[in-house]
Amino acid sequence: MYTPLTEHTVADYVKHTPAVWAVVFQPDDDLVGIDLADGNVNLVFRVHSAADPLGRSVIVKQALPYARIVGESFPMPLERARIEADLLQIEARHCPGLVPRLYHYDDDMHLCVMQDLNQHMIMRKGLVNQTIYPHFAEHIGVFMARTLFYTSDLYLPHDVKKQNMAAHINPGLCKVTEDLVFTDPYMDNPGNVWNPAIDAEAAAIRADDALRAEMFTLKYAFMTKAEALIHGDLHTGSIMVNADDTKVIDPEFAFYGPMAFDIGLVMANLALSHCSQAYHAPDAHTRATYQTWLTDTMRATWHIFEREFRRLWATDLNSQWATDAFREQYIKRVLQETAAFAAAETLRRILGLAHTYDLESIPDLEARADAERRALTIGRRWLMGYRQIESIDDLARVVTD
Amino acid sequence: MYTPLTEHTVADYVKHTPAVWAVVFQPDDDLVGIDLADGNVNLVFRVHSAADPLGRSVIVKQALPYARIVGESFPMPLERARIEADLLQIEARHCPGLVPRLYHYDDDMHLCVMQDLNQHMIMRKGLVNQTIYPHFAEHIGVFMARTLFYTSDLYLPHDVKKQNMAAHINPGLCKVTEDLVFTDPYMDNPGNVWNPAIDAEAAAIRADDALRAEMFTLKYAFMTKAEALIHGDLHTGSIMVNADDTKVIDPEFAFYGPMAFDIGLVMANLALSHCSQAYHAPDAHTRATYQTWLTDTMRATWHIFEREFRRLWATDLNSQWATDAFREQYIKRVLQETAAFAAAETLRRILGLAHTYDLESIPDLEARADAERRALTIGRRWLMGYRQIESIDDLARVVTD
Repeated sequence: MYTPLTEHTVADYVKHTPAVWAVVFQPDDDLVGIDLADGNVNLVFRVHSAADPLGRSVIVKQALPYARIVGESFPMPLERARIEADLLQIEARHCPGLVPRLYHYDDDMHLCVMQDLNQHMIMRKGLVNQTIYPHFAEHIGVFMARTLFYTSDLYLPHDVKKQNMAAHINPGLCKVTEDLVFTDPYMDNPGNVWNPAIDAEAAAIRADDALRAEMFTLKYAFMTKAEALIHGDLHTGSIMVNADDTKVIDPEFAFYGPMAFDIGLVMANLALSHCSQAYHAPDAHTRATYQTWLTDTMRATWHIFEREFRRLWATDLNSQWATDAFREQYIKRVLQETAAFAAAETLRRILGLAHTYDLESIPDLEARADAERRALTIGRRWLMGYRQIESIDDLARVVTD
Repeated sequence: MYTPLTEHTVADYVKHTPAVWAVVFQPDDDLVGIDLADGNVNLVFRVHSAADPLGRSVIVKQALPYARIVGESFPMPLERARIEADLLQIEARHCPGLVPRLYHYDDDMHLCVMQDLNQHMIMRKGLVNQTIYPHFAEHIGVFMARTLFYTSDLYLPHDVKKQNMAAHINPGLCKVTEDLVFTDPYMDNPGNVWNPAIDAEAAAIRADDALRAEMFTLKYAFMTKAEALIHGDLHTGSIMVNADDTKVIDPEFAFYGPMAFDIGLVMANLALSHCSQAYHAPDAHTRATYQTWLTDTMRATWHIFEREFRRLWATDLNSQWATDAFREQYIKRVLQETAAFAAAETLRRILGLAHTYDLESIPDLEARADAERRALTIGRRWLMGYRQIESIDDLARVVTD
């Protein structure tokens, strides 16, 4: 019974789904469906009441058997809708208010109906306009600490964790990351896209076997380090924000992987924004202020993550890990791996298939190349130096030096 | 229909199991069942033909819902019989001849019927008598290289490996290792047993937070590092040998864990034998010769493991890991982790619940304490120094220095 919805059918679908219709809308509402066409891989519709478009509305997100913007040549598993519905509920349990509300999941139609975040914007777009999000570090730091700690062996009984791991192997979407983040950018792969102005830098990275060895070591960790149920795609395009609030969306890449992959993606995407500000914030004062906010936010995100993680360690640790020295070794190791995975995300956004709006929105190829070279330098330093990182200041200094 | 077998019922069971009866025995054979009572956790029977006790015989190994030598206070999952049957078949595919032949698995009775290794002896017993096994290093090195490589992400397609991992989480038996190897020996746990002559050394280790931090880091790796389908219990009591042949038995602890756990257990149990020879080989020349064979065997085991692993890497690697520098980094990392897990096995055999015959068969407590102190020193050096190990000679030198 799986049928991809359209602008014309989606309103009817909502109207005949009591878990949505009865909860969100009023009996005499006329519903309007709009194809937002803003996901890379899924169908995404907004359905709103004609009488109150902002007040009474939902998002309908439906999986296709392939990636929407690429087409049928890039197959993707339909089960990602189930994973998203599952994760939204798990995340909401640990972090109420930091994920959109899930109204309904339809296993036959492979779709989720969820809260419409029409008072929020995609964080990446806000960063391009030098928007300050005063609560972001607090929200994302707590989100990561809680979702990662509470799904790990630090908290869960040994058997529950192993069963959760087995229930969340997600091979289809992991493969996308294994290829696009950790493999293809370092190979002669026809999917790679890069600015011709940095041909020399791209070739140098692809010829650097020491760098590639570190990258494959990270890929191996991504594939074998079953620490926690990670979000798996926590870049600034998966975060919606406003001045007061933060919502983490799009958890369909979730699986049991390395905690630092999530933290590293946040760090890397703040760094990519930092690189892009040379173009987006042409006024020197505005640029300096905003770049300082970005690196301050990197530090604050880690500090809040660490503070919350230590708090959970003190209150909710299971009894099997009771030594202080182990905790200190553990937290330092997560920080170092954060730099490593931040490197992987930074480099692949310049050299691989999927770039970011921060840099792609710079129309002049030479200006963009300057920003991209800075990003490559940051990524390379993080990657080749992560074992020497002792503090978040060491990590953030790589972006400003 | 699960019923524990007895000496009186086991022969009848075999006679009514065509996959055994028709394959191993002759139509007019009278069968005799004997309770070998030599497993720690299972019922183990030999069933042989009265006419040819050595020529026509099988082993029947049946799981109990608890550990046999402890009793019902130590529950163990019945599904370990299924895991053993599954693993014997997987191992036989990669290493024909290095595991006992499986004739029959009975899912209701939770038992396996397998080849009777009546021409072999448990390796640990042979080591106590200074027996030289000229082919052991070759056999065990190849066994480990092949079983570990062929079940890892180096060889398997990404999705097959993840499905295999999910199908082999084995929480019940992993918990035994998590507790008995990595946790209890470092706590004030009533299950711990140690020689009162080393009270001071035991207390010092339990008070050493830096050492305990390293041990918990290893435990965390054991629980989160899903590299390969490891044997999980590869000590010299799980290996049966004679002058020509080696058979690896008892794979019911198997799960996706760190490769180096298997290699480390082999190394540690050779080292424990080395420590015990001061008693078992009272003649100085015999002792020196045998101890040299033991450390030579440690080195040879690694060299053969590494040679075979590199051969498989060259011929059977999947396409996702193609850099030489990564391979070198990978092999060195496995060696270092081998020292680390060898340390865990060495220390827990002195301080925890389950000791080894090598040392327990030394009746004089002071003589035993001398050997145990050496083992503790070896374990501590491996544990606190494994990140500095660059070669197998570095690892083996810890035993002889």
